[in-house]
Amino acid sequence: MSELSPAFILVRPQMGENIGAAARAMLNFGLSHMRMVDPRDGWPNPRAVAMASGAAGRVLDHAGVFGALPEAIADCAYVFATTARGRDLTKPVMTPERAMEHARALCAAGQKVAVLFGPERAGLENEDVARANAIISVPVNPDFPSLNLAQAVLLCAYEWRRQAGGDAPEMLSLAGTDLASALEVEKLGDHYEERLDAAGFFFPETKAEGMKLNLRNLWSRMPLTRADVQTLHGMLRQIVRRRDG
Amino acid sequence: MSELSPAFILVRPQMGENIGAAARAMLNFGLSHMRMVDPRDGWPNPRAVAMASGAAGRVLDHAGVFGALPEAIADCAYVFATTARGRDLTKPVMTPERAMEHARALCAAGQKVAVLFGPERAGLENEDVARANAIISVPVNPDFPSLNLAQAVLLCAYEWRRQAGGDAPEMLSLAGTDLASALEVEKLGDHYEERLDAAGFFFPETKAEGMKLNLRNLWSRMPLTRADVQTLHGMLRQIVRRRDG
Repeated sequence: MSELSPAFILVRPQMGENIGAAARAMLNFGLSHMRMVDPRDGWPNPRAVAMASGAAGRVLDHAGVFGALPEAIADCAYVFATTARGRDLTKPVMTPERAMEHARALCAAGQKVAVLFGPERAGLENEDVARANAIISVPVNPDFPSLNLAQAVLLCAYEWRRQAGGDAPEMLSLAGTDLASALEVEKLGDHYEERLDAAGFFFPETKAEGMKLNLRNLWSRMPLTRADVQTLHGMLRQIVRRRDG
Repeated sequence: MSELSPAFILVRPQMGENIGAAARAMLNFGLSHMRMVDPRDGWPNPRAVAMASGAAGRVLDHAGVFGALPEAIADCAYVFATTARGRDLTKPVMTPERAMEHARALCAAGQKVAVLFGPERAGLENEDVARANAIISVPVNPDFPSLNLAQAVLLCAYEWRRQAGGDAPEMLSLAGTDLASALEVEKLGDHYEERLDAAGFFFPETKAEGMKLNLRNLWSRMPLTRADVQTLHGMLRQIVRRRDG
């Protein structure tokens, strides 16, 4: 597994057993790069280790644990969010098949990829989804959608592995630059939010939260390169400088 | 589900919970035709019903229960056996993908298809496998094969559904807005170019043309919606207004 492979990120997972089952599901299909955001029962978690059995040493022991999602995806160039229900966010929606095909192409181009999985009870918050580039939605029976956390992980890991059997993935044309990392996009979002706030853009106040969410979603949805991010920073800086100068 | 679909046959299942979980996994992907051979704890089984929740009425209540495998597959034209380990039996071995492709073709031709799943502990006996036309083997990590019964059912049911094809194509979730027209993107580019020019952004002059081209490319490369374009206009307007006000 020296090739680049996606990080599966469990966001605020609740039961240790499910963390262990997710680790097994990953390792079944050769994935070992797990991260967690704010696991409910702390970390390490003996129940997770017991359930993971052989996957404990190969997945859980190396799992990164983060306090908040932006830190967990800071070094990732492309982030998928798995969700069961529709969201009022403009974002590409892919099947696991298309998503893992895309992930293979990104990894082959040296780009770090993450897949987010939400807490058992309610799934990812809109605030989490807004930080992703695309949504993965498993095409389940609409009359009976009951996938649990480890099953969602299993299907994504299976698709990752299945794609390995096929033809070489198509390459992304990046014109000599890398995709921006999630950290860079986060900072870009901060910069705009701060300046727009100072300029009274988020008005009226009752709508401010929703406007900020939409703006975050706008940036993270775009396939922004490093060069784009530099340009967008530079534009804002120059306009503000001229204002204050 | 009036079309012919495969029967998933649990052969000598042990735990009621696993029968219930298998029923859920099937119904997640629209399959409802289950059979059982000699379930260890008899039938009906309240633990199976409790675990199946919504799938109890739609799958378990109609499940056929048989004393031995030959009776359970008597009316089937083609039988797949799922196995994790190699067998000393000459038999076609397929991935779930190829197997469900084949199953679709058979069902479309009006042929009854069955897929056998063995008991939790040891899987199918060679005697069971010998009654099948082909073997399904999930391409798991050879260093860590740990699929349980419900997971094997889930992956086969997922592949059945996936083969149905095109029912969940990649799409952009637009949250009630349209993609922006090229004209709208062009006007957005004009607006930014004009304001940035006035702010002295395109400097030095020898690089101005290239910078403008890159900026046009940035906007047009993004999948911008109408709402995005409005937001981006509004941001710029507000910052300039605050500056000049």
